[in-house]
Amino acid sequence: MPAVEAKVFHIDSLREFSTRIFLHFGITKEDATQAADVLASADLRGIDSHGVARLYSYFGLLNEGLINPKPRIAAVRSTLSTATIDGDNGLGLVVGPQANRIVMDMADKAGSGWVSVCNTNHFGIAGYYVLQALERDMIGWAMTNSSSLVTPLWGAQRMLGTNPIAIAFPGKEEPPIVIDFATSAVAYGKLEIARRKIESIPLGWGIDRNGRDTTNPEDIIDGGCMLPLGSDRERGGQKGYCLGVMVDVLCAVLGGANWGPFAPPFALRQVIPTRSVGKGIGHFFGAMRIDGFIDPAEFKRQIDEYVRTFRASKPAPGTNGPLIPGDPERLAEADRRKNGVPLLMPVVEDLRAISKQTGIPFD
Amino acid sequence: MPAVEAKVFHIDSLREFSTRIFLHFGITKEDATQAADVLASADLRGIDSHGVARLYSYFGLLNEGLINPKPRIAAVRSTLSTATIDGDNGLGLVVGPQANRIVMDMADKAGSGWVSVCNTNHFGIAGYYVLQALERDMIGWAMTNSSSLVTPLWGAQRMLGTNPIAIAFPGKEEPPIVIDFATSAVAYGKLEIARRKIESIPLGWGIDRNGRDTTNPEDIIDGGCMLPLGSDRERGGQKGYCLGVMVDVLCAVLGGANWGPFAPPFALRQVIPTRSVGKGIGHFFGAMRIDGFIDPAEFKRQIDEYVRTFRASKPAPGTNGPLIPGDPERLAEADRRKNGVPLLMPVVEDLRAISKQTGIPFD
Repeated sequence: MPAVEAKVFHIDSLREFSTRIFLHFGITKEDATQAADVLASADLRGIDSHGVARLYSYFGLLNEGLINPKPRIAAVRSTLSTATIDGDNGLGLVVGPQANRIVMDMADKAGSGWVSVCNTNHFGIAGYYVLQALERDMIGWAMTNSSSLVTPLWGAQRMLGTNPIAIAFPGKEEPPIVIDFATSAVAYGKLEIARRKIESIPLGWGIDRNGRDTTNPEDIIDGGCMLPLGSDRERGGQKGYCLGVMVDVLCAVLGGANWGPFAPPFALRQVIPTRSVGKGIGHFFGAMRIDGFIDPAEFKRQIDEYVRTFRASKPAPGTNGPLIPGDPERLAEADRRKNGVPLLMPVVEDLRAISKQTGIPFD
Repeated sequence: MPAVEAKVFHIDSLREFSTRIFLHFGITKEDATQAADVLASADLRGIDSHGVARLYSYFGLLNEGLINPKPRIAAVRSTLSTATIDGDNGLGLVVGPQANRIVMDMADKAGSGWVSVCNTNHFGIAGYYVLQALERDMIGWAMTNSSSLVTPLWGAQRMLGTNPIAIAFPGKEEPPIVIDFATSAVAYGKLEIARRKIESIPLGWGIDRNGRDTTNPEDIIDGGCMLPLGSDRERGGQKGYCLGVMVDVLCAVLGGANWGPFAPPFALRQVIPTRSVGKGIGHFFGAMRIDGFIDPAEFKRQIDEYVRTFRASKPAPGTNGPLIPGDPERLAEADRRKNGVPLLMPVVEDLRAISKQTGIPFD
């Protein structure tokens, strides 16, 4: 197939543009910088769907007054190591980092901290949050629910978001192990790419509107459902479904956000759920002090050994052997810091449209 | 195929027999009763591989002096909400419940509790522990590592155990949501059953000793590897691999147990790893007070609504629709409490052999 046309940008330009867009809506300097940093992290780490490609959606929601640019983020209930935080319908890119700082501050005092966050919006990549925890010698956890795309096993209805889970563990000389994945069999972005290229997809990614297996991405996007990790009963689809439910309950039921099929959409012009059972979408964050369990130097030494042992293990035929979780994103970041971030032309067009509307220069 | 011959036992007989076997080794009455309760829970819930079928292995290890019948279980490091516990090489069926009580006691005071446990042995079903937490209006988490059977994605070597994860959420009128699954594509027990019946298995369960896909269970058991949840790169095998690593690090690296390929075997006559990097295997437990986040009555009301909403969702063609996590085990328990627990004849023979050696009557 022909290469999709792209234009390359320096990460600092993208970060600057995002910051100025957020400032345009009266978001404080600190919050705008923070929000832009979360987006930049996705662009650097190669999670293109969650970076500046989403600025257009955030812009739309802010422009329509559907997101509060000046949220008062506050705990509504707490113990020494737990809390529920109300994000006051702020940007998830602002509420998320604030809630994550709260769990790390809790962990400083109590050994660990855990918060469920309601009344919030999409928070970017889950991996961003657990990387923050590494800087404080903590093991961070991050999850979020999102609008429904995934069917339960044996179902034929969108009931769960792609509900990602992230957690990270620091090494000493080796890079950290950084785990960050959606609990669906595949990322939604892969369906969109296959559709754009008019390619068929493997069985196990999704079902059509009648609940039948399909290899046509259009069938899934147009009223069908994505399948949970594991895909079918034979290969453990019930486990991916369980993970999706786990994330949904921790993020949304526990903190009083909208769960399951009632999670509100991310972008304008998407279907609004018929019912509300809580406030906004929900996140769940955790932080555990490593020295609450073990000497951090010893932990990092063992993680180094872990990474080396797994790297040295026997490769499957035709492969270079196992990766360590976080490898692809780390390599992408090294490349993109040096060579810039390629944005697809439709994304560039979106950003140009925002530029035109706001008068904030782009490229 | 012909039905495999089985004999049915009342759960109380099995519980009594297990208790007496444990007492035989000088385990205290309290610990023996506790250990037997964990096994009985597996037999009731239909997790046959983890119930009294394993008593023969525990017996063998105790008989050889490889498990300490009178462990001094103690925290070696702690904060208000975290600890590492050394199980003193006790039965996992004793160390696990004790560590789980410690996390719940921590949660009483600090809102949540989290422990990594080293120097322990197999702890039965992970689901047992999270059911205990429900009785205290807590959300319980339980994980364990185990001897290696699963390859990383793109690998061809046993590097991870089947490393299960469990978590549960209580309803008010509806039964709780109980999540408990191994992070491999399929349970090891299913391979053994397929081998016994000389049946082929689906692609995606495992690879042979040369790293090739196989539909012959013998190939996997005889020097091959199980695959992680997701099976291959196209269907998210990297995610199941990430989950296996997550469980392994939390259970073993964090608490100083043996991780990855160095986790010691469960039964006698299994290969001993060439190297030790810690003490025994490891578990990880968590407990979070529901009222540390939300009014527990409101949480349970929402879980009821959640369960009803998912049950009422559209079924896939040819199915009765989605189950709620925990349904199969709950139905098995109701049936087995009423009709007894069927044990396969090889299991009955194992128990008779123990009976003969100890003089403790069986059936």
